[in-house]
Amino acid sequence: MLVHGQPYRTIWPTGAGGDVAVIDQTRLPFEFQVCTLCSVAEAAAAIRDMVVRGAPLIGVTAAYGVALAMREDASDANLAAATAMLVATRPTAMNLRWATARMQRLLSQVAREERAARAYAEAAAIAEEDVAACAAIGRHGLEVLRAIASRNARGRPLNVLTHCNAGWLACVDWGTALAPVYAAHDAGLAVHVYVDETRPRSQGAFLTAFELGAHGIAHTVIADNAGGHLMQHGAIDVVLVGSDRTTATGDVANKIGTYLKALAAHDNGVPFYAALPLSTIDWTLADGVREVPIEERAGRELTHVRGRAAGGELHEIEVVAPGSPVLNPGFDVTPARLVTGIITERGVAEAGRESLAALYPEHAGN
Amino acid sequence: MLVHGQPYRTIWPTGAGGDVAVIDQTRLPFEFQVCTLCSVAEAAAAIRDMVVRGAPLIGVTAAYGVALAMREDASDANLAAATAMLVATRPTAMNLRWATARMQRLLSQVAREERAARAYAEAAAIAEEDVAACAAIGRHGLEVLRAIASRNARGRPLNVLTHCNAGWLACVDWGTALAPVYAAHDAGLAVHVYVDETRPRSQGAFLTAFELGAHGIAHTVIADNAGGHLMQHGAIDVVLVGSDRTTATGDVANKIGTYLKALAAHDNGVPFYAALPLSTIDWTLADGVREVPIEERAGRELTHVRGRAAGGELHEIEVVAPGSPVLNPGFDVTPARLVTGIITERGVAEAGRESLAALYPEHAGN
Repeated sequence: MLVHGQPYRTIWPTGAGGDVAVIDQTRLPFEFQVCTLCSVAEAAAAIRDMVVRGAPLIGVTAAYGVALAMREDASDANLAAATAMLVATRPTAMNLRWATARMQRLLSQVAREERAARAYAEAAAIAEEDVAACAAIGRHGLEVLRAIASRNARGRPLNVLTHCNAGWLACVDWGTALAPVYAAHDAGLAVHVYVDETRPRSQGAFLTAFELGAHGIAHTVIADNAGGHLMQHGAIDVVLVGSDRTTATGDVANKIGTYLKALAAHDNGVPFYAALPLSTIDWTLADGVREVPIEERAGRELTHVRGRAAGGELHEIEVVAPGSPVLNPGFDVTPARLVTGIITERGVAEAGRESLAALYPEHAGN
Repeated sequence: MLVHGQPYRTIWPTGAGGDVAVIDQTRLPFEFQVCTLCSVAEAAAAIRDMVVRGAPLIGVTAAYGVALAMREDASDANLAAATAMLVATRPTAMNLRWATARMQRLLSQVAREERAARAYAEAAAIAEEDVAACAAIGRHGLEVLRAIASRNARGRPLNVLTHCNAGWLACVDWGTALAPVYAAHDAGLAVHVYVDETRPRSQGAFLTAFELGAHGIAHTVIADNAGGHLMQHGAIDVVLVGSDRTTATGDVANKIGTYLKALAAHDNGVPFYAALPLSTIDWTLADGVREVPIEERAGRELTHVRGRAAGGELHEIEVVAPGSPVLNPGFDVTPARLVTGIITERGVAEAGRESLAALYPEHAGN
C-alpha cells in the first residue's frame, strides 16, 4: 500500500546478493526506515524483536530466514538448526510453524547445491500467495461490509473497530482485517476505522494508525478501554480483527484484549468478524481457550513505553509504579460463539467446524 | 494508609491559616509530594488537572474549595461563583455536585461573618464522614471476600481484579473498592490484586499499584486488555471497582473500560462488585447508559504519556501516530444486569432499585 505516495511491501529481496529488506516496524510511526537482513540469525532476531510482526509477515520472514541459512550452509544440519532457531522466536504464531515446515519439507527433497535457489524461490512464492490471499480476503470482506452498510440507513460512513494491527504491515501487502477496509476505500464505500491503541505494544496507535493515515483512510485512535462504550452508543457497525491462530472449530486466538471486544460486540448486537488466511487455521485444535498456547511476553513491554519526545528523538520511559510486579500475556482466545463469521481467501465461513471444513475440504480431514 | 511507613490522608487543613494540603497525585508513583491549596481557584485547578482525583476526594476538595472562597469573600455572590467554578471542573462527578450543594445549602443560612469558620468545619465533617463510610465499606466488603474465599478450595490467596484507582488515594483514607482489600489484609485473609493499568491516564499502574505497594499488599499490574484472558483461565476470583455515579437502578458509571471487565466477569461466572458510598448514588437516574453524561477528555491524555526516563527525570512522550485523530471518553456505564452486588457503607445491596432503596429509605423516595 502507499507510504509517502509510493507503493510498498513489507518485505522484499534486495537485488542479486540475496539479502532481504524489511520495514523496521519498531521505528514506526515516527520514523520510516528500511533495514536489511543478511543471515538467519538476523531474520530470527527481526521476528523476536518485532522489527517484523503480524502472523503472515512472520511466516514470510521465516521462509526468507531459511533461504538466508541455505545461502550460507545448505546442509541438513543447518536446515534443522535454522528451522529450530526461527520456530523458537514466537511460540504462539501458527504461520511461523507452517512456513518453516513447508520450507523444510521442500528443501529436504532437494539436492544441497540447489537448496539456496529453491529456498529463495519458495519464500517468494509464499510472499506472492500471501498477497493473493489478502487481496481475496479484501474482496470477500468488501461484500460483508457492503451488506452491513446497506442496513445502515444513517448515511454516515461505515464505522469499523479494529484491534492491534492486522493491516498490510502485518502481511506483505493489503493485510487481513484491513484488506476489506482498503477494498472498500478503493470501491468508493465510505469507511471510518476506530483503532484500538492495543497496549502494551501499541500496534494500533503506532502501526494501524500509521498505515491507515499513510493510505488516506479516515480513522480515530481510541484507548483499548473505550470500545465497549462506543458500541453501547451505536458508534460501531462492525468489528474486524485478524488472528494468530484459529481452531478447526472457529475459536480465534488474537492479540490480548480481542476477547473483550468480542464480548462487547455480542452484548450490543454488533457483528464481529475475524479475517484470516488458511495458514492461520490449526486443524488439530478444537478448544481454543484450553489448547492454544499463550505466549507470556516480557514485563518490560508493559513497564516501559517508547515514543517521541518534544525534541523529536525517540525515548523510552517507565510507566508503572517502580517495584510493582507485572504480567504480560500476549494473546487471548475468542470463543467461536462470539464470532459472527470468518473471512478467508475462499469466502466467508461461520465460526464452526462444518462451515470452515466446507471452505477447506483438503485440510479439514486432518 | 501507609506511605514510607507513615500513616497519611489525601487531604488535610494545614495549621491555623486555613490553607489545605493535598498529595500531588500527578507526580505519583515516581515522586511523593504534598502541595498546598490557597484559594478556590487553586482547588478548582487541582480537581481539573487531577492533582486530586477520585469521586470522594473530589467532593472533599470541592468542600474545602468553598471554605477557601469563604475565607477570602463570604458574600452570596462569591459563594455562587465558587460553587459554579468547582462544579464546572468535572461534569461526570456526582460527589462534586453533592458536596458543593451541601456546602451551599448550609452556608446560605449562615451569617456572612460566620461562613468561613462553618465552611471549614463542614468540609472537615465531610472528610470524616468519608473516612467512616470507607471504613464501613471495608467491613462489609470483607464479609463478601471471606465468603468468596471460603468457596475457593485451592488454598491460594484470593485474587481480586480492580480497574482504575478506587483506593485511599481516591478518597480521604481506606478507599472504596480497595477498602475491603485493606480490611482483608488487616484481618489476615491472604489477598492478591490484579491491577488494570487503566489507560489513558494509567491510574492503575500509577496510583493503585503505588498505594498497594506502599501498604504492603501483594499485587500485579496488567494491561487493560489482559483481564478477560485471566478470567477465562480461572485466575480472578472477584472483580472490585469503584463508581463515579450509580443510578437508583444499580447501573454503575465508572472509569472507561469497566464495562468490558464486567462483561468478562459475567461470561466466566466471576462475581463483579462495585463499592461506593451513598454520595455516589444519583436517585434521579434510572437508565445509566442513556442518562449518565460521559465526560470527553482531552485527546492529549491518549496521545502523550508521562513517565520516568532512565535518568530519573519525568518526561512526556508522544505515543500515537502523528496526525491521527483521537477520541477519549472518560467513563462508561456497566448495566445493573452485569453487577453481582453493590457494597455500601450500610451493607451489600443487589444492583437494583428495591435493594438499594431498602438500604437508603430516606433517599430512595426522591
